[in-house]
Amino acid sequence: MRVAEIDTPALVVDLERMERNVAAMSRFFADKRAKLRPHWKTPKCVEVAQRQLAAGAIGITCAKLGEAEALAAGGVRASVLIANQLVGGAKLARLIELAQVLPELVVAVDSADQVDALDAALGGARSPAPRLGALVEVDTGMHRCGTSTAEQTVALAGRLRASRVAYRGVMGYEGHAVLVADAAKRKELAEAAAAALCAHVDALRAAGLAPEIVSSGGTGTFDLTGTVPGVTEIQAGSYVFMDGRYREVRSDFELALSLHTTVIHRRGRLVVTDAGVKSLSSDFGLPVALDLGARVVGLSEEHGHVLLDEGVDVSPGQRIRILPSHGDTTINLHDRYYAARGDSVEAVWAIVGRGRFV
Amino acid sequence: MRVAEIDTPALVVDLERMERNVAAMSRFFADKRAKLRPHWKTPKCVEVAQRQLAAGAIGITCAKLGEAEALAAGGVRASVLIANQLVGGAKLARLIELAQVLPELVVAVDSADQVDALDAALGGARSPAPRLGALVEVDTGMHRCGTSTAEQTVALAGRLRASRVAYRGVMGYEGHAVLVADAAKRKELAEAAAAALCAHVDALRAAGLAPEIVSSGGTGTFDLTGTVPGVTEIQAGSYVFMDGRYREVRSDFELALSLHTTVIHRRGRLVVTDAGVKSLSSDFGLPVALDLGARVVGLSEEHGHVLLDEGVDVSPGQRIRILPSHGDTTINLHDRYYAARGDSVEAVWAIVGRGRFV
Repeated sequence: MRVAEIDTPALVVDLERMERNVAAMSRFFADKRAKLRPHWKTPKCVEVAQRQLAAGAIGITCAKLGEAEALAAGGVRASVLIANQLVGGAKLARLIELAQVLPELVVAVDSADQVDALDAALGGARSPAPRLGALVEVDTGMHRCGTSTAEQTVALAGRLRASRVAYRGVMGYEGHAVLVADAAKRKELAEAAAAALCAHVDALRAAGLAPEIVSSGGTGTFDLTGTVPGVTEIQAGSYVFMDGRYREVRSDFELALSLHTTVIHRRGRLVVTDAGVKSLSSDFGLPVALDLGARVVGLSEEHGHVLLDEGVDVSPGQRIRILPSHGDTTINLHDRYYAARGDSVEAVWAIVGRGRFV
Repeated sequence: MRVAEIDTPALVVDLERMERNVAAMSRFFADKRAKLRPHWKTPKCVEVAQRQLAAGAIGITCAKLGEAEALAAGGVRASVLIANQLVGGAKLARLIELAQVLPELVVAVDSADQVDALDAALGGARSPAPRLGALVEVDTGMHRCGTSTAEQTVALAGRLRASRVAYRGVMGYEGHAVLVADAAKRKELAEAAAAALCAHVDALRAAGLAPEIVSSGGTGTFDLTGTVPGVTEIQAGSYVFMDGRYREVRSDFELALSLHTTVIHRRGRLVVTDAGVKSLSSDFGLPVALDLGARVVGLSEEHGHVLLDEGVDVSPGQRIRILPSHGDTTINLHDRYYAARGDSVEAVWAIVGRGRFV
């Protein structure tokens, strides 16, 4: 199939650009002590994970249990970190099942109740119980989840060590820094977050609880936190495709994902496409058109409203490529990628780990 | 299964409320000349369509071809209106296939090129060609798609009559009116839109092109446009579940849909749930919590940030029900509903017509 024959709206991956992004990140980590465990909440695609692992990633980071289940269902047998708290009996039962399948599975905890619940779930597992690891999540400034003080972190690490759960280390995600466009400000925030994380690591060492894993970093900060002594792995995910928001933050990766749309109506300089908010997320604001001197000025459910530059000629039936403002949430609206090399569709890849995968 | 055992985040339908909404809308149309053709872009669920048809709906309205295909794949054999322009060879080939399956299929057109493309697609169909109908879409004030002048409408209707496509009538959706909370202003906008549509109908009658179908109306305006002489059917969809935005507009339907979430972290008056923008849309702003004196104050991808009222006690593991601000786009993020009667889950219903159904 040619790219021009794909029915729209459709997410199209530019394979050459994606491969260069994967290779560039691989080169960065080749001589670093920290390694890459790319975040799968961006691509949600087994074929992308396989390419990242083949390029040297030490495992995969997931945002929720359902993503890790989808990876496993797709045949991936890598080390997986679920960088989130899992709460509730149904989730923990699923987690124990998944731990039987994956070679290594690690989750985040930030409360004693969670440690106790994981311990009890392992205690109730059919024999032999699987190995399940945990990191203590530290709040390094984002103020979402995580421990606030080193004392809390040490206490949780000790509680893990005394439990059936394998204590593996700590994580701290500087989500408040990764998208800051001002490079100096981003560096300042990332360094402060890394310093906070390292203070917890020092306290753990002093308590005889030296962490094996210290996980941090995103696409906006991987080169800042990924070179901090003591940090062992980085969770960056968006670099693989990039998006409109990250384009404002860094220029060392290529735009590898676009939504192909078809113009269905024209009224002067305004055209209407077949892609609205049910195909393009707006949580990071309106996306931008990549062609034709066109600007997206509004989205209804199944229509995109695009304003053409003066003198631009576009007719119904023509295509306009849109750069998602937020790749992660736009991808979450779709079931498949068209993976293209030049004008040829080389493969159709399933997008999984969404919807029923909670 | 009990509702409390559903793994979260999960969309839960309160069946008793939904059934009352369906019955209330059915009662409204029982003695009207206009009939209900509910919009399926809201529920995207075969079981909901079946209940609406059983309650007297004359057919189903869809926003795109993929929704109509999903309805047909689910076994529905009703009259279907796709209230949108379909552009491109791949779409028209699929449309012709679908017309072989459904007892009645009608699409919207607003340009001569579209009429010609539909005509050519029917001409190229395997014999016998299916019957395919079309409505001329009129812009009644929303300024998205549609004809602007009665002359354009008459010309397109004439072109349809001269083609292989069955000319069936007109449609005009007053999307700029349906969500206006001020009842007087909403009435004014809806009446102006209906008057604009009727002027096109008058011109068609004068040209010997009297429309059989005159389709209009949404949940915010069904009682305004549904009583205008000449309007034959109404496209309201959101009434079946309602949502946070429509709650501001009208009180004669019940809130029948909520997202059940689990608290995973607490920090003073702030709690974090397991539902972010990948489970809850934000195109109509932040959703609201239905329980516990809680307010949603932010959403990240897989986390909801909720502020508790002073003195409210909530612990990790507890559940908070969230009312989507925009039902249509929240439903579009999910693969299934848990259909509950009281505390019991009576069925799990698939949400279809999204993702790959473009």
